[in-house]
Amino acid sequence: MQHRYQILKPDWIVTVNADFEVLQDYAVVIEDNRIQSLASIDEIQQLPCFAEAEIIDLPGRVLMPGLVNSHTHASMSLLRGIADDLPLMEWLGEHIWPAEAKWVDAAFCVDGFQLAAAEMIRSGTTCMNDMYFFADEVARSAEQMGMRVVVGLIVLDFPSVWAANADEYLHKALAVHDEVRGMRLVDSAFAPHAPYTVADGPLRQIAMYSNELDVPVHIHLHETASEVADAERNNGQRPIDRLDQLSLLNSNLIAVHMTELNEFEIERIAEVGVNVVHCPESNLKLASGICPLTTLLDKGINVCLGTDGAASNNDLDMFGEMRTAALLAKGFSGNASACDARQTIEMATINGARALGMADRIGSIEVGKCADLIAIDLGDLNTQPVYDPVSQVVYAAASRQVSDVWIDGVAQLRDSEFCQLDVSRIIATAASWANKIRG
Amino acid sequence: MQHRYQILKPDWIVTVNADFEVLQDYAVVIEDNRIQSLASIDEIQQLPCFAEAEIIDLPGRVLMPGLVNSHTHASMSLLRGIADDLPLMEWLGEHIWPAEAKWVDAAFCVDGFQLAAAEMIRSGTTCMNDMYFFADEVARSAEQMGMRVVVGLIVLDFPSVWAANADEYLHKALAVHDEVRGMRLVDSAFAPHAPYTVADGPLRQIAMYSNELDVPVHIHLHETASEVADAERNNGQRPIDRLDQLSLLNSNLIAVHMTELNEFEIERIAEVGVNVVHCPESNLKLASGICPLTTLLDKGINVCLGTDGAASNNDLDMFGEMRTAALLAKGFSGNASACDARQTIEMATINGARALGMADRIGSIEVGKCADLIAIDLGDLNTQPVYDPVSQVVYAAASRQVSDVWIDGVAQLRDSEFCQLDVSRIIATAASWANKIRG
Repeated sequence: MQHRYQILKPDWIVTVNADFEVLQDYAVVIEDNRIQSLASIDEIQQLPCFAEAEIIDLPGRVLMPGLVNSHTHASMSLLRGIADDLPLMEWLGEHIWPAEAKWVDAAFCVDGFQLAAAEMIRSGTTCMNDMYFFADEVARSAEQMGMRVVVGLIVLDFPSVWAANADEYLHKALAVHDEVRGMRLVDSAFAPHAPYTVADGPLRQIAMYSNELDVPVHIHLHETASEVADAERNNGQRPIDRLDQLSLLNSNLIAVHMTELNEFEIERIAEVGVNVVHCPESNLKLASGICPLTTLLDKGINVCLGTDGAASNNDLDMFGEMRTAALLAKGFSGNASACDARQTIEMATINGARALGMADRIGSIEVGKCADLIAIDLGDLNTQPVYDPVSQVVYAAASRQVSDVWIDGVAQLRDSEFCQLDVSRIIATAASWANKIRG
Repeated sequence: MQHRYQILKPDWIVTVNADFEVLQDYAVVIEDNRIQSLASIDEIQQLPCFAEAEIIDLPGRVLMPGLVNSHTHASMSLLRGIADDLPLMEWLGEHIWPAEAKWVDAAFCVDGFQLAAAEMIRSGTTCMNDMYFFADEVARSAEQMGMRVVVGLIVLDFPSVWAANADEYLHKALAVHDEVRGMRLVDSAFAPHAPYTVADGPLRQIAMYSNELDVPVHIHLHETASEVADAERNNGQRPIDRLDQLSLLNSNLIAVHMTELNEFEIERIAEVGVNVVHCPESNLKLASGICPLTTLLDKGINVCLGTDGAASNNDLDMFGEMRTAALLAKGFSGNASACDARQTIEMATINGARALGMADRIGSIEVGKCADLIAIDLGDLNTQPVYDPVSQVVYAAASRQVSDVWIDGVAQLRDSEFCQLDVSRIIATAASWANKIRG
């Protein structure tokens, strides 16, 4: 039974508010699922709720907003490591798509989602922007587990186990959108897979619905140079230009990957407020190209971070993704000051919340927001000594040092132990899938 | 009290032998400090030593050779995170060198070394190639801790707390070389800091001693484009050409960084057998440039991996370094098959052993070699399910999943607990240094 009030007393609070304040000798008061106060230790003791609150000491720990993984295919965790060291189209065409065709059903999606969600909670992610099949079942599972998720309302031109054609995908998309509206932890986004797998007709409909319902559109875009070259050859048009004509290029768009961008495109997406999800580890591993992160940040574009699916990463660790993003930006731009620790944390938190249209609810530690919070224990060898907790989080901490996680006020991890999930069962289920798939 | 025989029974053995055999249902027998047998579970039970051996079950774990960190400045862990997001020369000139001038003494070196060694053991590194001051004290500390180290016999033109001039550095180098020859776990290498900090005279002497004594020479080389451009402007010669003239370009050379290489230089280092240490995270973080790893591997050059010091990384985690090396190679070369999981593990183990002239003793699981071994528990969420243990080690495992570590047959970590080191004391000592340094 959870107390109505929880008071968290860490050594440092990295607020990720507009001033990026880092506070010492402060505490956070959670009331039910919300952040009720952020105040000095002295002030906290004067609050009326102090006597009835659960006081949670977090010595040696940094408290920060939970991480937002802005692009993933959670259920694909069941295919982690099934094929590596291959280029994108060979990896997809010869390994991933055949395995999916053979094995993906509702049970696969739910079991894979649970493995991924547990891995994410363990590593400090409290919200994911997902794109995969059976969004209805995944939504119910997320709600029941206590994981915050934006389910992708997937749309393709070709049949899958989920739908037979674009009309049916769209029909199901609207049905799932409707179903999740009443859920506590689930939002939805239209998720046309990519420009090369969805025709103009359904994309136009998605643009219309997105605009009417004010729902984000989550799409793979300009992932590789060959995607863009193929489109130019086949349609005489680059994919971004096509989406622009189809009224999709706006602040509801969550454009994933974006490794191949010309100057005009960068100006245009800055102008209309497109959100970009940078997935550095997936892009590197599949040799897809490198997103020009520092240029996008300099233009004021909202860039967030995603792990992509575990089949192409191969973990769902946003600490790894933060580090890779920061290091790659410096190395790729030749500027060691590029993408500093603060910007990196913003990409992994508030920028993701913004892309998902949820910045009023999550992404920072501010009064009134949902209590999606994580604590990181800097007491380990690899994060000692501590001169700057922000530097430690980005450049030294391992995700395993996440000691405590709250999602919507509910403790999911306390002192490195899961409070709600039966992890042994989740792992055993994943292993039994692998036994079947391995054959 | 340790048994004379230890029999390790993991789920998988990644031998890193010439065929890169991955064995299941096999066990490793350690006799004192050596690998005495590698045989099937059935055969092991027939061995005469079976009855008196300690049987160590390692369920769900991969056993592999301990990782070799081929370039580090261990004691600098006390400066971890003191300055970030800065280019190399500003970072060195305005932050690191002043802090070193003020604080480095024998106690700093030993305490920093112990923090680094403990972090390395915790993350699966069993041997480091170090370069810093007070190599004598560090050697004694390593021997006492049970950490395998190659201490760098540092040489500079300018005075430091360790020596007043090149003559004194060389004199001390030979004295330390002599002292460590009798030690169980310590080797030494000449460590002229870099071409731009050591004049021709001392480099010529090092070349002579290295050749006479067959001792490696560990040097920062072609770390940045500006290092090479400055040398060309000041000396009319690229540093590699200069080292070649000084008889240092040979298979005893351990050349660290090597981001700036022309075709001729690559041919030349391949021809003479120079060893290259790739430090991808340090190079990215300081925007130093990117080592052309895949080209070097294609030419058959022995490339190994190093973390560099914790002040520029900011951890000493060879799992992170493996992942970054593999991903960066793919992304940078545009070939997703480049630097596959197997090559990556070789760089982190046997290639490092080769560079250090220790491939007859460490770097693989083969009968007769020293028992420098690590076990990695793949039972965690982020490494489930398991299709391929080699893929999991490189692309999914976190260093925190290292559950067991033996160095020279001595268990240093068992079931994630340190067996020999007083880690609380090490951390407290590091924190007290930070308090002083922070002022």
